[in-house]
Order: sequence, then structure tokens, then C-alpha cells
Amino acid sequence: MLFDTVWRDLRLLTLAEGAAPVERGAVAAKDGRIAFAGPEAEMPAHDAKRVVDGAGRWATPGLVDCHTHLVFGGDRAREFEMRLAGASYEEIARAGGGIVSSVQATRAANVDSLVSSALRRLDHLLAEGATTVEVKSGYGLDLETERRCLRAARRLAQERPVTIRTTFLGAHALPPEAAGDKDGYITRVCEEMLPALAAEGLADAVDAFCEGIAFSPEQTRRVFAAAKAHGLPVKLHADQLSNLRGAALAAEHGALSADHLEHTDEEGAAALARSGTVAVLLPGAFYTLRETQRPPVEALRRAGARIALATDSNPGTSPLTSLLLIMNMGATLFRLTVAECLAGVTREAARALGLLEDTGTLEAGKSCDMAIWDIESPAELVYRIGFNPLHARIWRGQ
Amino acid sequence: MLFDTVWRDLRLLTLAEGAAPVERGAVAAKDGRIAFAGPEAEMPAHDAKRVVDGAGRWATPGLVDCHTHLVFGGDRAREFEMRLAGASYEEIARAGGGIVSSVQATRAANVDSLVSSALRRLDHLLAEGATTVEVKSGYGLDLETERRCLRAARRLAQERPVTIRTTFLGAHALPPEAAGDKDGYITRVCEEMLPALAAEGLADAVDAFCEGIAFSPEQTRRVFAAAKAHGLPVKLHADQLSNLRGAALAAEHGALSADHLEHTDEEGAAALARSGTVAVLLPGAFYTLRETQRPPVEALRRAGARIALATDSNPGTSPLTSLLLIMNMGATLFRLTVAECLAGVTREAARALGLLEDTGTLEAGKSCDMAIWDIESPAELVYRIGFNPLHARIWRGQ
Ligand SMILES: [Zn+2]
Ligand SMILES: [Zn+2]
Repeated sequence: MLFDTVWRDLRLLTLAEGAAPVERGAVAAKDGRIAFAGPEAEMPAHDAKRVVDGAGRWATPGLVDCHTHLVFGGDRAREFEMRLAGASYEEIARAGGGIVSSVQATRAANVDSLVSSALRRLDHLLAEGATTVEVKSGYGLDLETERRCLRAARRLAQERPVTIRTTFLGAHALPPEAAGDKDGYITRVCEEMLPALAAEGLADAVDAFCEGIAFSPEQTRRVFAAAKAHGLPVKLHADQLSNLRGAALAAEHGALSADHLEHTDEEGAAALARSGTVAVLLPGAFYTLRETQRPPVEALRRAGARIALATDSNPGTSPLTSLLLIMNMGATLFRLTVAECLAGVTREAARALGLLEDTGTLEAGKSCDMAIWDIESPAELVYRIGFNPLHARIWRGQ
Repeated sequence: MLFDTVWRDLRLLTLAEGAAPVERGAVAAKDGRIAFAGPEAEMPAHDAKRVVDGAGRWATPGLVDCHTHLVFGGDRAREFEMRLAGASYEEIARAGGGIVSSVQATRAANVDSLVSSALRRLDHLLAEGATTVEVKSGYGLDLETERRCLRAARRLAQERPVTIRTTFLGAHALPPEAAGDKDGYITRVCEEMLPALAAEGLADAVDAFCEGIAFSPEQTRRVFAAAKAHGLPVKLHADQLSNLRGAALAAEHGALSADHLEHTDEEGAAALARSGTVAVLLPGAFYTLRETQRPPVEALRRAGARIALATDSNPGTSPLTSLLLIMNMGATLFRLTVAECLAGVTREAARALGLLEDTGTLEAGKSCDMAIWDIESPAELVYRIGFNPLHARIWRGQ
């Protein structure tokens, strides 16, 4: 067998279901995919174009950020500053704050500037070992701008060695020009925007924000039906601020994931487990909003639901670009175990994107996406705060 | 005038008391010190050996971390993992967890390994623009190991371009061999350890942990008296877990700072303001311990106390090495304003170390310690989470 690259003397955390750590492991890549991952002593006879000595370092799958809003115009630093200085909601709105300010800045931005501002955020994720990143639209809220944002997201994959998955989130918020007509706007999302973007191949999935301040379960159902009609999988921003039974709604539609879930109840957790819908927890937004209602971690565990973690990187409620910090927040704020945090940003995050066949664990046949770390034990990746021990990042074998 | 280096076209946040931002500013360095900082148009006629174009970037003073426990052996990742997995206090203690495990690992470590593990943490602080870092002893708890830790701290300043201030924290915890005799141990701290380390010039200040689980106010007074006898300024870990009136005690002794302060009352805040003792808030420990009692920020403001922020970087309660994240936590968790956060890791942190004459603001005569950032506004430094926009770090003019 001729391998392109063999990494030897690695300690492997493959994150394959139920697998134990491999103390003296090796990984071989061929044509960008994993040809072997396991104990070095069990590697088949081979030649290799390149051999890399891991010097006993730990290797994990490349990290997967399965929920981001990475593409948008402007930032909300001024609004953050005003709020801390005691400004009222009205004063901030008058100064152009809130999600509307992000929509305006996004509509005013061309694709190059959307790409370049998103690249700065993406580069921080990559510097910590991310190899797959999901990017949602949702700050355009009209066909033209949503298209431009999804194109900018696709461009990120040309500019950097990373897998990008795009999600159409037209049902993120009501645009100002809709003047309160949520049903009318959802009609535009379902009949104008989604069909066009699906036809152009710009969306890998469809998402919605089901909440009192956003869209109702019934409006969400209409979005899901349109997605299904165009053959696109769905995801849902569910039960973040109140329990509208978003988790059960997502499960009922076989969604890839239901995200946030602070207010999900036992029944919702059980529904997720039954449908195989991944529970994506977003502690960055919980932290930024100073939430006190934690997602039902114990109920999710009892039900056997899959749990992922993501940055929710966005300008308003989670201006955060570190999956390592998200793991620490998952442990500190949500009391996830170290093993749950590590699986949450690898295997389970890949599952939440429908990509588990292709990435998220170190197993033969998958894309060779790997992170190599200067650490003594994998627990350090969760325990340390504001510390980046990445030694090397490998995407598709390089 | 002949300057060594001139940085032109910078936007300056000098952090000088009451100073407004300078839109088109310049900084000149001569012999490692600031020869000029202000509007470029007001710079005196000069030649310069080197001119750097700031391209409109923002510059602030180099950051100051005024409270760290950066030098220790081992880590506590395993203990963190066990606790999340539901292990009891006893199980963790049996597995060698808790502060005693850090003391054992520190006693077993030689100076080279203490330096090399601390350098990894220090390098993360420097990568975010820190130019001055305080380092406490306190994981040795015997003369020989405390000396080795302070020597390791001094070595950091030889290994990296950074100002290091050392603090002797013999009164951090009771060592196991003291077998419960706190008064006897404090006698050793005051009569054996402190005199020897002061004579060797290894300590720039003396600190103590005044708390039910550590040392009493009366024992703290004995440490402060010994420090005074050796001409060393004092600091105090005060009112973190309960209100023992540590803030007032620190103020009464003219301490440079009182640190933590979650349980400090109105009276304690007023005492700090009167004595000019800096209130050093440590949101990393608050976050890690999932504290709910916030330090009395409003009372400190009303009294006119000075407020600094620091990482408290330590293996047990704040395994954190990011002053940028600490600013965000200061704002998010403690509701400090952006201006308070920025002053808290520059001017006020320098004041907490007795170094305000030398660093902490961009003013003529001080050491030329500066950070230059790729940001649109200084608020971004506080607003963003897990994002490092440092463009350049200058220490003593280089
Ligand atoms: Zn989101
Ligand atoms: Zn401390």
C-alpha cells in the first residue's frame, strides 16, 4: 500500500463511538482520506511519501463548528458599550442598535467585504483546529442579500482549507419593510427565496427561529414543508427563550438538529432522542445573555439524545470565535462532562450537519481532518480557558 | 531631538486620567521610554532612527495582568474531569486532587520545569499584548520551594521581553505538614520565609489569603506587620467567599490592592477608596466557581474606588490566560463599562502593582509599553470573545 502521509507516534482520541484512546497510534492519509487510524502496531505494510513524527502528541478529529452566523456586515460593539453604560432599549434602538442594525449593515455590504470580515472570524476558528464550519444566512432577509451572504459563505471555502456548510435562515427575523406581517414574509421565504436559493445550490440546509420574538410553530412548519419540497434537510433555533415545543417540532420533521434548547422539557428531550435529532447547545449565547435557565442536560442524557456544542458566532448574542472556550463553557456552565464536550465539537457536531459519514471521527474512509495538540491529556482542551495548544491542523490530509 | 522610533498615524487611547482618544496620534520612544505621546501635529521637531506607519490602527498601553499564580507544577485537568463526572470531594481528594496536589507537584518540580510550564502560559498573555505580569508564589509553602518559585518568576523576565513583578504568597494555604497549626505556620512565614526572601530581593510585594478556609484577619495582620518590617508593600486576597472585612483590613494597612471582593460591603468599598487601595476584580474565578455573589461594583463606583481586572491565572479556580477574555467577563458578568474594563487592565492594574509611575498609560516619561490593534473601535477589545486582534506589542520601545 502506498500512503501519501503517515503520522506516527500519536496518542489518538478517534472519537469513534465507544472507542478507547490509543496510546501509540498512527494515522495514514491517501487521496485526502483516512486510509488507517489505530494502533501503530496494527498498521498494514506500506510505503509512504511523507512520514510525520507525532512525538507522542495527542490527535483528535478536526473540530466542527455546527452553528454559526459568521457572515454579516458591521459589528455591535457600540451597542454593547451603550448597554453597559446604562442606555435603555429605546436609546439603543434610536442609535441604530439591535438585529436591524446588522441587517442594514449586511444589506449595504458587497460580497468581498462580507468575505473579508467573515475570514477574520473564520481564521480564529481555524487557528484552534476547526476543519468544518457551518455558516447561516439570516442578516439579509431579502432574496438578494440572503443570496449574497450564502455566496460569501461558499467563497470562504475557496479562500481557506476548510469544509463550509451553508444554511438558509431566511426565517431569522422579520425585516423592517415587512411592517409586522410575519405570515406574508414567511410566504416570501417559502415561495420566493427558498426555491431560488435551492435551485442555485447555495443552501445545504434550511433553518428557522421559532420563538415569540421571531416565528410561530405554524410558520416554522411552513418553512419546513418548503425545505422538504426542495429536498433540503432542516434545523431549528428552538426553545431558547420560552418553551414553544420547538424540540418536538424539529423532531417531528426529522430535523438534523434542534439548537439552544434552554426551555426544552423532558418530553422534548425524548422526542429528539427518538428522531435522532442532535441537541446543539450554545453556551456562548447563554453566557452573553446572562441566562439562568440551563438546557435540560440530564433529561437529554436520560433520553439518550445526542449532544453537540457550537459557538453560535453572531454579532448580537455570541460575538465568540473559539470552540475551545465553548467546550469550557459547556462544562462550566452546563455541567457537561469532558467526554461530552469533546464529542460535542467533533462527532456530534458532524452528525448535526449530516456529515458524520465524512468527518467528525478518525476512522478509515473519512476525510483526513485532524487536530494535533501540545497537551498532556485531552481533558486539558476543556479545562484550560483562553489558551490554544494547537500544534497542527490537517484538512483533507494536508 | 533624536528619537529611536516614531509610530505615526495611530489612533491613541492613552488611558491617561481623563484623556480623550486622539484621532491622529503619534508615539515616540527614546531609550525605551515614551518621549512623546499625543496628536501627531503637536509632536516636536525631531529626527527618528525608525518610523513606523500605524495606518490608522488603535494603540493602547501594553496590558498589565496584576494578579496571577503563573508558576506551579502539574495541572488540575484530571480533577476538573472527575468533578464533572460526578466524583465527590472525598474521591477527588483520594485521587490527589485539590490545592495539595498543586503543592506536591510544585515541590517536585525543578526551576527549569517551573519556568518552562509558566512560559507557555505567559506566552498566551503576551500574544494578547501584555507587557507587565505579576506572579505570586504560594504553591511551595516551604522556604525552599517558595524561593524556587520566585526565582522561576524572575527567570521569566530573562526569557521574554516583559516586566515581571513577584509577590510572596506564603500565606496562601496551610501545608499538609503543618498539621492544622495555622498560627505556627504563620510564624514560619513571618520569621523564616519572608525575611530570607526579602533579603534575597526575590519579592516585590507580600500577599495573603484571608478567608475561613485559609488565614484569619489576625494572622493576616501578622503577615502585614512582617512585610512592613522588611519594607515590602502588601496586597490581600479579600472577601472572596465570605465577608471577613478583608477590604477594610487591606485599606487599614495601606495595601496596594485588595483582590476578589465578592463579599465586600459598602463600608469596605469606602475604606478602599479612602486609602487608595485598588479593588482588583477576578471574574475568571467567579466564572469557574459558578459564583452568584457579584463584587459590589456600584458601591465601589459610588465611593470612588479604583477598579482593576486580572486573570488570577491558577490551576484550580481560574486556569485562564487571556486578559481580553477577562475584560469581556468583567463587562458581561460584573457589568463594568467598556471604559472601566480598558482602564482595569492598564492604568488601574499598573496602580495595583505600584507601577503607575512607570507603565499603564501612554504618557511621556513612562516605559514605552504599547499594544497596537486591528480593530475599528476600542470597545471591540471588550465586546469580542475568543478573538485576538493584536497587531503588534511593544515593550520598552521595542
Ligand atoms: Zn443561532
Ligand atoms: Zn489569587
